[in-house]
Amino acid sequence: MNKTANQMLVIFGASGDLTARKLVPALYNLYKGKHLPDNFVVLGLSRSNLTDNTFRKRVVLESPYLKEALKGENQDFVDAFANQFFYEDLGDDYDVSYGKVNTRISDLDTKFGTGGNYMFYLATPPNLYETIAKNVSEQGLSDESSGFRRLIVEKPFGYNLKTAKNLNKGLHQYFNESQIYRIDHYLGKETVQNLLVTRFANSIFEPLWNRNYIQHVEITNAESVGVEKRGGYYDKSGALRDMFQSHLLQIVSLVVMEPPINASAEEIRNEKVKALKSLRIMHDEKTLYDNTIRGQYLASVIDGEKVKGYREEDGVDPNSKTETYAAIKFFVDNWRWADVPFYVRTAKRMPTKVTEVVVHFKTPHHQVFNDVDINNMDNKLIIRIQPDEGIMIKFGVKVPGQGFKVERANMDFYYSSLVDNHIMQAYERLLLDAMQGDATLYARADEVEAAWEFVDPILDYWENNKGVKTYGYSAGVWGPKNSDTLLEGNYTWRNPGEHLADDMGFCVLS
Amino acid sequence: MNKTANQMLVIFGASGDLTARKLVPALYNLYKGKHLPDNFVVLGLSRSNLTDNTFRKRVVLESPYLKEALKGENQDFVDAFANQFFYEDLGDDYDVSYGKVNTRISDLDTKFGTGGNYMFYLATPPNLYETIAKNVSEQGLSDESSGFRRLIVEKPFGYNLKTAKNLNKGLHQYFNESQIYRIDHYLGKETVQNLLVTRFANSIFEPLWNRNYIQHVEITNAESVGVEKRGGYYDKSGALRDMFQSHLLQIVSLVVMEPPINASAEEIRNEKVKALKSLRIMHDEKTLYDNTIRGQYLASVIDGEKVKGYREEDGVDPNSKTETYAAIKFFVDNWRWADVPFYVRTAKRMPTKVTEVVVHFKTPHHQVFNDVDINNMDNKLIIRIQPDEGIMIKFGVKVPGQGFKVERANMDFYYSSLVDNHIMQAYERLLLDAMQGDATLYARADEVEAAWEFVDPILDYWENNKGVKTYGYSAGVWGPKNSDTLLEGNYTWRNPGEHLADDMGFCVLS
Repeated sequence: MNKTANQMLVIFGASGDLTARKLVPALYNLYKGKHLPDNFVVLGLSRSNLTDNTFRKRVVLESPYLKEALKGENQDFVDAFANQFFYEDLGDDYDVSYGKVNTRISDLDTKFGTGGNYMFYLATPPNLYETIAKNVSEQGLSDESSGFRRLIVEKPFGYNLKTAKNLNKGLHQYFNESQIYRIDHYLGKETVQNLLVTRFANSIFEPLWNRNYIQHVEITNAESVGVEKRGGYYDKSGALRDMFQSHLLQIVSLVVMEPPINASAEEIRNEKVKALKSLRIMHDEKTLYDNTIRGQYLASVIDGEKVKGYREEDGVDPNSKTETYAAIKFFVDNWRWADVPFYVRTAKRMPTKVTEVVVHFKTPHHQVFNDVDINNMDNKLIIRIQPDEGIMIKFGVKVPGQGFKVERANMDFYYSSLVDNHIMQAYERLLLDAMQGDATLYARADEVEAAWEFVDPILDYWENNKGVKTYGYSAGVWGPKNSDTLLEGNYTWRNPGEHLADDMGFCVLS
Repeated sequence: MNKTANQMLVIFGASGDLTARKLVPALYNLYKGKHLPDNFVVLGLSRSNLTDNTFRKRVVLESPYLKEALKGENQDFVDAFANQFFYEDLGDDYDVSYGKVNTRISDLDTKFGTGGNYMFYLATPPNLYETIAKNVSEQGLSDESSGFRRLIVEKPFGYNLKTAKNLNKGLHQYFNESQIYRIDHYLGKETVQNLLVTRFANSIFEPLWNRNYIQHVEITNAESVGVEKRGGYYDKSGALRDMFQSHLLQIVSLVVMEPPINASAEEIRNEKVKALKSLRIMHDEKTLYDNTIRGQYLASVIDGEKVKGYREEDGVDPNSKTETYAAIKFFVDNWRWADVPFYVRTAKRMPTKVTEVVVHFKTPHHQVFNDVDINNMDNKLIIRIQPDEGIMIKFGVKVPGQGFKVERANMDFYYSSLVDNHIMQAYERLLLDAMQGDATLYARADEVEAAWEFVDPILDYWENNKGVKTYGYSAGVWGPKNSDTLLEGNYTWRNPGEHLADDMGFCVLS
């Protein structure tokens, strides 16, 4: 295990939902697992009127997100954790002099021996990122001559290519790229990282991982919920910005990338950027029309319960064209993937919650046997990101009995079978990585920009072209009726759960 | 399902063990599964003094091998089955005129409408095969002008290349090759047949199935029992003749063969013969010395129980050099397999009963990650023939937690999960195939001879070279101490059950 240097975590937006819901529980797990350094403090900053004590109560001692974890714990143990938390009120505005903040940081650093190492976590709306970076920097707090200074920012990173570039440019005025950690919690998932290991630590997958053997690649991210309380935010964002540009293109890059020369942060990210840059950007309207589908869920009845349509949700414009379903077909212009279609979709109000990568291999070149399942002859490698994390191969076996009839069977591995390891939650893992200066699972500036480069023309087409349709789909079904038209040949989307017989135990119907 | 023509099954050696233990239970299962033709009779022949009635009692109504199956069955249903059995006493010798037999066959054929279709099953010692074929033929019963006439013979088919050739030549005087069915019950096993389907009905295995990706192939046939009551027979045969020449080289041929152009009996067998002919025959003493190991089990204590050594077994020469353990390394001289070593072993008194094929893939060309299990980095495809029939892939996955540590995991498929199909026992399946004229799973003359061609020099070397050692091994261990020396590099035999952690549920320790 790597050694973590003494340090201070400075959280901007410390009274917000993310801090209490994700960051503090992650810190508590790290504390319990003895992953925190000997000298460690958290300084919370926000515009709320809190004290050290009320902050500790809010995010630790009386936090609903820690209630379960703290049940039955030794009180001294819990108090020792809570006592690492401090708070400073920023007043009315983030755009003020951080002189007071600087003083507090200094005092805590001296008192608790955190070695001048500070990590600034921006758990605030993105429009504050540059302001905070500027004010932090003006206090000399981004200067690394007397300790490391890191900046963690949350997605969304930019609203489109232009704003992402501006944001990078803005932050780079105050922090070097090597100091900036752009979090994408999908990269904190074991199964996402295992994509790299599956491909590059085995000799049986990589020889097949190219246009010679792969027919197409399908990536599905389905959520069973609607927009919930986030209607106002979501309506300005949409599925493409909210999921596709970040999480899904991250997964695409791991599927597409060439083998890195080693597992260092820079080498892996170099290959990911190269992968993202090789996605064929869609320029003309015809291409955009043919290769993209947007949809919106409609009111429906699920399990006897009425659910609202998207346009009826709180905070959503009743004439909104924002997509809750996005399906994109694209190609990858490089030697490995030429002519192999990629189909990626993300949507809300699907029949189940699932994220998976399906690699469809070509059907056998020559049919030797009598295949009873002629429409399903292709071998598939299914990498399940969530839930039931694991890997499954669908292949043909002999039907017991005379002759050589072939039917489909599954060979599978579940990550949960590795029982002897505590599997870190995404935030826990990512926070620890950042504390140790490992940026492998953080998106680099050029990576984020390459992703926007691909997404921008689609966003632009959907927003500004009057002819683009928004297809409706009843909440609780697998998207608009025409969604299968995106796929070439006779293929259809693999909808996990519909293949009941061969998905036993592998899919969770909501 | 294919239609089975009306026919008569004529069993020579009908009072023997094989008939009661294997053939009649197989026929009963076919009867129950409604696979027998409308008009069907069995005529038993042997030197025992039996009547139709006493024969029926012996092999059906009071047979210990059917007791379990008949329990609770409707008596009319069982009687209808038993009443299909008839018996004719051959007298003192098999080498007599079969005039009486011919008359009986004729009468039964007329009475029961079996359409002149006769299948002769030789459940006798092999030295009677030619005699019986001659006497059958002399009655005109091998002539197919008024119905099909088939001859099924049991292994061992020959004692070496010369005797096998003589036997083929002998039988061919009276029967055409297309009429002869040489049974190898290993080919009746679903998992053995599934080897072909795994390879040729999928697109993900065959691209890897060659010298570019495979490091070596290992085939193990282990029995936990000793020679039991067969000491007298076994001591004249040995592991190489008893298992290797027949069952194991059949498996080798299915692993090695090129894709057939279709699944017909002739095309599959053509490829199998080609495969067997491509095995590099060992001519000189040095090669034979370096690539073969023979062993004999020694007295030992297993689970607190004393077990005899081989030389102490009933019927075994106390100075016997007959092998109960045979391990052979060889190469396959063709484009696909050049330089890939094959390691095949078969033995009695092993720690467990298991038959499996292990395809070891090469280790990844380039090590990107930190592999915790550096000595076990190769991916393996394990095809378990028995018990727990199935397929397993051993591959590397990411150890949950920071960094990219790799450990071994299993992806597996069990044949037993295909629950909705009755899996035919080997004899049941093979009998039905022969009744329908499908010879795919029967060994052709050239196949048997090609197998002997490879085995002959080893037999000859072991029998006639004074310098060849017979290594002892304690009953209940994985063979002689030097058995791993056969394998190149740092590899050792995979001994299922020793890899406890990764074999959970996959191996049955006896």
